[in-house]
Amino acid sequence: MVIPVFCTDQRTMPKFEYALTHTDGRARRGSLTTAHGKVETPVFMPVGTAATVKGMTSDAISATGADIILANTYHLMLRPGAERVNRLGGLHEFMDWRKPILTDSGGFQVMSLTDLRKLSDEGVEFRSHIDGAKFWLTPERSIEIQNYLGSTITMALDECTANGVDARSAANSMRLSMRWALRCRDAFEVRTGYGLFGIVQGSVYPDLRIESAAALKEIGFDGYAVGGLAVGEGQEAMFSVLDVTAPALPENRPRYLMGVGTPSDIVGAVRRGIDMFDCVLPTRSGRTGQAFTRRGTLNIRNARHAEDPRPLDADSDYPGVGQVSRAYLHHLFKAKEMLGPILLTMHNLHYYQDLMASIRGAIEMGSLDEFAAVFHEEQASGDIEQI
Amino acid sequence: MVIPVFCTDQRTMPKFEYALTHTDGRARRGSLTTAHGKVETPVFMPVGTAATVKGMTSDAISATGADIILANTYHLMLRPGAERVNRLGGLHEFMDWRKPILTDSGGFQVMSLTDLRKLSDEGVEFRSHIDGAKFWLTPERSIEIQNYLGSTITMALDECTANGVDARSAANSMRLSMRWALRCRDAFEVRTGYGLFGIVQGSVYPDLRIESAAALKEIGFDGYAVGGLAVGEGQEAMFSVLDVTAPALPENRPRYLMGVGTPSDIVGAVRRGIDMFDCVLPTRSGRTGQAFTRRGTLNIRNARHAEDPRPLDADSDYPGVGQVSRAYLHHLFKAKEMLGPILLTMHNLHYYQDLMASIRGAIEMGSLDEFAAVFHEEQASGDIEQI
Repeated sequence: MVIPVFCTDQRTMPKFEYALTHTDGRARRGSLTTAHGKVETPVFMPVGTAATVKGMTSDAISATGADIILANTYHLMLRPGAERVNRLGGLHEFMDWRKPILTDSGGFQVMSLTDLRKLSDEGVEFRSHIDGAKFWLTPERSIEIQNYLGSTITMALDECTANGVDARSAANSMRLSMRWALRCRDAFEVRTGYGLFGIVQGSVYPDLRIESAAALKEIGFDGYAVGGLAVGEGQEAMFSVLDVTAPALPENRPRYLMGVGTPSDIVGAVRRGIDMFDCVLPTRSGRTGQAFTRRGTLNIRNARHAEDPRPLDADSDYPGVGQVSRAYLHHLFKAKEMLGPILLTMHNLHYYQDLMASIRGAIEMGSLDEFAAVFHEEQASGDIEQI
Repeated sequence: MVIPVFCTDQRTMPKFEYALTHTDGRARRGSLTTAHGKVETPVFMPVGTAATVKGMTSDAISATGADIILANTYHLMLRPGAERVNRLGGLHEFMDWRKPILTDSGGFQVMSLTDLRKLSDEGVEFRSHIDGAKFWLTPERSIEIQNYLGSTITMALDECTANGVDARSAANSMRLSMRWALRCRDAFEVRTGYGLFGIVQGSVYPDLRIESAAALKEIGFDGYAVGGLAVGEGQEAMFSVLDVTAPALPENRPRYLMGVGTPSDIVGAVRRGIDMFDCVLPTRSGRTGQAFTRRGTLNIRNARHAEDPRPLDADSDYPGVGQVSRAYLHHLFKAKEMLGPILLTMHNLHYYQDLMASIRGAIEMGSLDEFAAVFHEEQASGDIEQI
């Protein structure tokens, strides 16, 4: 069915594997070895939707400290097309990013971006948001596309259960995802150094989450994701689901919380045993003028920054970005200059990577609780506007 | 009148001076020493209109090989305002660019971008293209603004004579510019390492160009610009004006051809004794998908590039940019991703800098004629689409 994307000798390729090196409470410090390099966990993956982290060259992404990025199957299957990317050597070659890439299954965007969807046990029919063309996405097709892309980590196709559904609907939806997970496992071509992750669903219902985790473990995956969160349920409900779900997942496999989140979400989820994160927040917010810092967020478009010579973030050690003046960034946003979004994207991604490095350090030292206490105090201070 | 922008000790500051090191026919190889560093000539200055070369960080500008950039007085006086930039430490500090900056006088943009202008011997009244606010620009105010910006090279305010005017109108316009040039010289605060350039006008009329050059030499400037060209007169007429004008300028001062041009314009102008250039072509064209290469130009938006795995420019040694595939760049432009304009801006600026380095090398070797012959042959070949 599928065409091998990388010609590297499979015999010398490192195995796809997760090594747990430290724990601190339920928090885990480890590393993930892949065909495209090693990733230290807990890790944050910047989102590179259409084979580009918006406004960032490959070198600039690396310079923020990122060792793995996420790309969106839905966008790439529509444009430029998975088969075309494959003919061009795969996604790593195409976008000149030589480190690991995780691709989602396309399911979430089909549900959130398209009209005229028809969902059945077989899969989902939809129309492209670009030109209205009709497409089919099935578990088998999602895996095929991700293989064409040459994804280091392939995600199983699932239905992301909507927030607020009753237990019966959540169960039906989750069980559909579990049937699809099995079909994904069967369709996935095992290659050394590449991994396939299953996705736990079950909404906010503990028994459904546990049933889902058990079903996935029974099938057997290289990693386990927690899906259907960050869809409006709130941080407390999300953490409650993690409290139930993370302990139900295997210790020796990475755990990935999809689409999360704010710095506070990440710190809380790490403390509940999560290893991997992705979110558009640092990049999308950066493009609209919001900067993340240790001491809270700052909107550079506010008039108060117009003549402020202070650096964006005195705590940042990011050369050429963190030390740029607020007045200059304000000017760039007012003048609608591309460089404003570019610099704030760089800054925010660097802040997120810096946060993850601090979290990893704290777990190694067994001091994550102390780190979290200081983190929350500084975030809540809103001091960034004053210092 | 003006506030010193840089506090550097004036006694240890290098003098603003041009050293001519080689000639090849009328072409000149030299270097310009300034308060903000040395510039090898002939040189091309990328345009950073609103205190940013669109889409480029300071480090990225330097990485293309640029040692000096141009910024636009008109845009900066309107937003964020010259006095504000001054309070923020000057333009170098504001945009975090530590090498020389040349600013134009604002006159050209007032004429081309604004409505409701009133021109008199005193100066020009106009309304902002941003919000319609009323402004005055006089020779004294233009110099004051450029001093507030901390420009390494300040340009005298002139009237850029329109293409196609008769000799009488051209003479009147040029003589107004000469009266303004004298007022600019008087208003300019002499500081070690900083320079003021006068601008030769006179349209396509040889006697007027010679009269203008003589008037400026009489006043005395640190450099001499040739203005009023690249306004629609065509390359042949432009070269004819340079044939007359360049020999009328002092040997020991830099010569700057404003707003020029295509690679072919630059090669021809260097051969006629020009040392400095600026143009929006590499940056503006890059944003719309046109790439400059040794073997002609290429429009990456053309469908033929959609599945072309070849590098944008096999001749480019620019890491991370020249070797990106045409298919990827095509995808980025089709998907309206910021990274497309960013990468082509980088590529085009690098191509221009590379061209200037080759020109400088050829003058040193005394082989500019041979270089120009090969240059024109390769440009005309259109081979870039084939190789």
